[in-house]
Amino acid sequence: KPNAATSSDKGGIEGAVNEAYNKYKDLKEGKNADYIPELAKVPSEQFAIVVIAPDGKVYSKGDADAMYSIQSISKVLTLARDIEDFGPKAIQDKIGVDPTGQKFNSAVFVEENKGKELNPLVNAGAIAATSMVKGNTYEEKWNTILQTHNDFAGRQLSVNDPVYKSEAATNQHNQALASLMNSFERMYFDPAKSVDIYTKQCAININTKDLAMIAATLANGGTNPVTKKKVVSPETVAHVLPVMATCGLYDDSGIWFYNVGLPAKSGVGGGIMAIVPGQYGIAAFSPRLDEAGNSVRAQKAITDIVNKLGLNPY
Amino acid sequence: KPNAATSSDKGGIEGAVNEAYNKYKDLKEGKNADYIPELAKVPSEQFAIVVIAPDGKVYSKGDADAMYSIQSISKVLTLARDIEDFGPKAIQDKIGVDPTGQKFNSAVFVEENKGKELNPLVNAGAIAATSMVKGNTYEEKWNTILQTHNDFAGRQLSVNDPVYKSEAATNQHNQALASLMNSFERMYFDPAKSVDIYTKQCAININTKDLAMIAATLANGGTNPVTKKKVVSPETVAHVLPVMATCGLYDDSGIWFYNVGLPAKSGVGGGIMAIVPGQYGIAAFSPRLDEAGNSVRAQKAITDIVNKLGLNPY
Amino acid sequence: KPNAATSSDKGGIEGAVNEAYNKYKDLKEGKNADYIPELAKVPSEQFAIVVIAPDGKVYSKGDADAMYSIQSISKVLTLARDIEDFGPKAIQDKIGVDPTGQKFNSAVFVEENKGKELNPLVNAGAIAATSMVKGNTYEEKWNTILQTHNDFAGRQLSVNDPVYKSEAATNQHNQALASLMNSFERMYFDPAKSVDIYTKQCAININTKDLAMIAATLANGGTNPVTKKKVVSPETVAHVLPVMATCGLYDDSGIWFYNVGLPAKSGVGGGIMAIVPGQYGIAAFSPRLDEAGNSVRAQKAITDIVNKLGLNPY
Amino acid sequence: KPNAATSSDKGGIEGAVNEAYNKYKDLKEGKNADYIPELAKVPSEQFAIVVIAPDGKVYSKGDADAMYSIQSISKVLTLARDIEDFGPKAIQDKIGVDPTGQKFNSAVFVEENKGKELNPLVNAGAIAATSMVKGNTYEEKWNTILQTHNDFAGRQLSVNDPVYKSEAATNQHNQALASLMNSFERMYFDPAKSVDIYTKQCAININTKDLAMIAATLANGGTNPVTKKKVVSPETVAHVLPVMATCGLYDDSGIWFYNVGLPAKSGVGGGIMAIVPGQYGIAAFSPRLDEAGNSVRAQKAITDIVNKLGLNPY
Repeated sequence: KPNAATSSDKGGIEGAVNEAYNKYKDLKEGKNADYIPELAKVPSEQFAIVVIAPDGKVYSKGDADAMYSIQSISKVLTLARDIEDFGPKAIQDKIGVDPTGQKFNSAVFVEENKGKELNPLVNAGAIAATSMVKGNTYEEKWNTILQTHNDFAGRQLSVNDPVYKSEAATNQHNQALASLMNSFERMYFDPAKSVDIYTKQCAININTKDLAMIAATLANGGTNPVTKKKVVSPETVAHVLPVMATCGLYDDSGIWFYNVGLPAKSGVGGGIMAIVPGQYGIAAFSPRLDEAGNSVRAQKAITDIVNKLGLNPY
Repeated sequence: KPNAATSSDKGGIEGAVNEAYNKYKDLKEGKNADYIPELAKVPSEQFAIVVIAPDGKVYSKGDADAMYSIQSISKVLTLARDIEDFGPKAIQDKIGVDPTGQKFNSAVFVEENKGKELNPLVNAGAIAATSMVKGNTYEEKWNTILQTHNDFAGRQLSVNDPVYKSEAATNQHNQALASLMNSFERMYFDPAKSVDIYTKQCAININTKDLAMIAATLANGGTNPVTKKKVVSPETVAHVLPVMATCGLYDDSGIWFYNVGLPAKSGVGGGIMAIVPGQYGIAAFSPRLDEAGNSVRAQKAITDIVNKLGLNPY
Repeated sequence: KPNAATSSDKGGIEGAVNEAYNKYKDLKEGKNADYIPELAKVPSEQFAIVVIAPDGKVYSKGDADAMYSIQSISKVLTLARDIEDFGPKAIQDKIGVDPTGQKFNSAVFVEENKGKELNPLVNAGAIAATSMVKGNTYEEKWNTILQTHNDFAGRQLSVNDPVYKSEAATNQHNQALASLMNSFERMYFDPAKSVDIYTKQCAININTKDLAMIAATLANGGTNPVTKKKVVSPETVAHVLPVMATCGLYDDSGIWFYNVGLPAKSGVGGGIMAIVPGQYGIAAFSPRLDEAGNSVRAQKAITDIVNKLGLNPY
Repeated sequence: KPNAATSSDKGGIEGAVNEAYNKYKDLKEGKNADYIPELAKVPSEQFAIVVIAPDGKVYSKGDADAMYSIQSISKVLTLARDIEDFGPKAIQDKIGVDPTGQKFNSAVFVEENKGKELNPLVNAGAIAATSMVKGNTYEEKWNTILQTHNDFAGRQLSVNDPVYKSEAATNQHNQALASLMNSFERMYFDPAKSVDIYTKQCAININTKDLAMIAATLANGGTNPVTKKKVVSPETVAHVLPVMATCGLYDDSGIWFYNVGLPAKSGVGGGIMAIVPGQYGIAAFSPRLDEAGNSVRAQKAITDIVNKLGLNPY
């Protein structure tokens, strides 16, 4: 496939980013997540696109500094941490790496599989991944997770407290999933505490530059292209990206990968990141979601950029 | 990632193929499929590895001319044909492209989703894909399918009649799936005839050179690297490969993609093909299967070659 | 419990029937079944209540001669026939007698249980029960079923042809259930023909006097209280009534039995019959159904009569 | 049906009890529950049959004083308490009264129905029933439950502490069910405490005379035939018995009711009670269970007595 975009040929990227931004900036499809008031309140008009090249060069457009909660995208970072610390086989065995485009964000799947063959990017498996995180206490585990997020983003991040508190007050179903996993001996720390840490990691505040930097770190084999810190190894990344490829966009994961061919992950905060292995980290943000819970404009913007620059590897 | 293998550097490939062959040639794990006598009778010791480079150069080892039924691998070719003829959106809408590592080779999933959100590489969706194939009659549809297989392989193939007849006599569950799909208006031709065509396509006889040529045609953007015939377009291939990536190895699809990172497809006949986009078609064959229905030695051989030559794109 | 109602004390029954009729005659809740036009066209205002005492005395009110299709109520008669002809153990083993208030009128349950542990009053099990009916051919089986209906009703019945044809043209899901049962070797005659016979038995035309006579025959240990013909044995009845008790009113079977305590069966044609063992057959008819598919007025009328006359055995 | 057995004709009952006892006393089929050591340790040879007539007369044979944990049979008493205190509609609405012969002792059913349409004699619904029990605190609720058991049995009962402690240490799955119910707002007290009370009620120690007295109280419309205390009203009993009829013997509930026609309830401690409304309470005990978890000898003994005395109401 022709690919004119290189870091020195910034015209290609800049043009693609601008074009996508302008094409979708007035699109009003979808609506904010509203299961907690804090997500409903995020200004719906916000829209940002950021691409970061292998040399750390940032191509940015729109509200790239607007902050929002990372939500499900944090699952990718916790997964990366676990693979780095315990090896890919441990995650495969203790959680599972089964692809799915279905709603097994439910107790049905957990019960039927006795807590096995889950996926670390879908709730039950993600909570198990959080419970596995290195550390003997709540604090140690939380610090491991926050440090990992900081390292990927290349700067100090913090928790959006209203989002955390609001979600902590309404996470009974995640508690039930953790309790059910626990009954099958597939939780690796106190279930209630694990759900709390998980809820907190989802409330970490980021902007779209952070998100693109996280993506770029994954694109760059686990080393942050700006700070040069090796967050995780290339082998870890090689195991994280396939899981993103199959389970990154909730129930529409299959549709995304079928059409775009790149590992990606979305969060109900409105962010989506896509990884072009060895090349770019691409991030977009817009709070209005479609029915599957994925940002409408972020999906469209990334898809256009990928097509324009010929980045679909298939 | 370092990738020393190019067509001109055949030493790399040849060495990797030989090494894998020698490492696994005496491995006796797993057992032949036995749900019909014809599959149980295939000599279990047979083992072949074939890699085909972009220039059509064939690297082969073992029983590369031994014939066996293509089985589920045919689903890939029928899918490619449908995408080429009706466009990627038609398959997405009329069948579904949901990834899965689960057993939804069952009526449960079909019923719960009212025949939607299936996958063209898993039985119910595959039968629907066969029912969609271009042609107004059984004969026309069958001819379209056989011709597609011929074009991918670059030579005239034929049906293994004992396998076809034996499977046709025992395909009641596939008939039930088709009947159920039909009740949700998700079959696109007579259900019973569609199941029969599907059964016949699974019985097409190939050898491991054929399988590698099919893989190489996919790696080469849809054009057979030897006959130079354009079987399907690069855009079609770009939609086929992601589906293989998420659903190629039955219940172990997720584990495969997590560890190898390449689109692949296996059949209970013992064959597996993997695609390195823009580069190689890799095929291996050995009749003994693991519990998920994937050839034990074929999986191991391809994994070793991919690792040795650094072909995992992630 | 006090029970003033005896055949000689007809005042009790007559009063209860009249009271219920007057109380509900103007009730317009619910709506006709409409999945085929023929059911939607039945005059919604029709309402009938008929009670038949052990001595054959008929207490009737309203449109007791209005004809309608028997629908699911026919399942009871076919079940009785099979138990009579093959013994209660055969039905328990070859179909199942599992109570359920759930929608296992679906392929999900059939697949998960591999066609076992079904219930002869719910579609999949009912089709299996029809397939078991004595006779080697379609005609013989059909004749057995029609004759059984005639014997229970005490007169010659016939099929409502427009209902039969319309349902036969739209019974794809029942065909799928039969095909699925067949794949688990739990059909006992050609699946397609069995579904056709089943469809035809559901289209047998009855009026509410017929329905009450069927109920009275069951209340009378299997002997028609007017014709005195022994249709089935008391032992057969003793096995039929518990199945009605647990599965008679679709998804509301549990609610019915919890509140009324009597075996009953409803059909989407608008009829419901309830059995007071050793005493009365009670039938009511009104085409408007609630969401569970049970006649609104028929349920209320029977419940009132049971309460008024103290017929709940618990 | 002929029924020669009356309280004055004690020969009938005595003979039936003795006959059943002698017929099965040497039967060794099945095995003790063993999920906790305390149940495995109960002497397997113990066997008792007790029938109590409306006048309180006790017909007893075997180890009628041997103590064992009431287990699931306690669900009936808690259900009766709730219906008495809150009315039948409250239980229908807040828990559900859906019959089932299926394993919905699992999270699957709870999740799919969002905690609705359960059954108070199956775990999830039973825990909800316990959570509803009158009382504002753990102590008050527990006292209500224990007092109800005492009143039914007509004497002071107590908890088998080793059984309670052992089950409390291994009830993670029930905790998960309660947590899941809670996420659907279908728990009516703290989930963890409710599970603990539920675990404790299952550990109440009884002998077979107690069990027959409980059954006789239900047969007698809710008034203990010996103490003459009105434990619950006849209307409550009329709602309890149908639930027992449809869900009393775990997965074999349907088979039991199909063949015996009487409301009954079994516990994994080895006890089974059956109710002949207006007539007898029948209890039997033997620790060896079949695969469905019902005492082998207790089922057979009760069935024989019911058949011998003609007590099947259908």
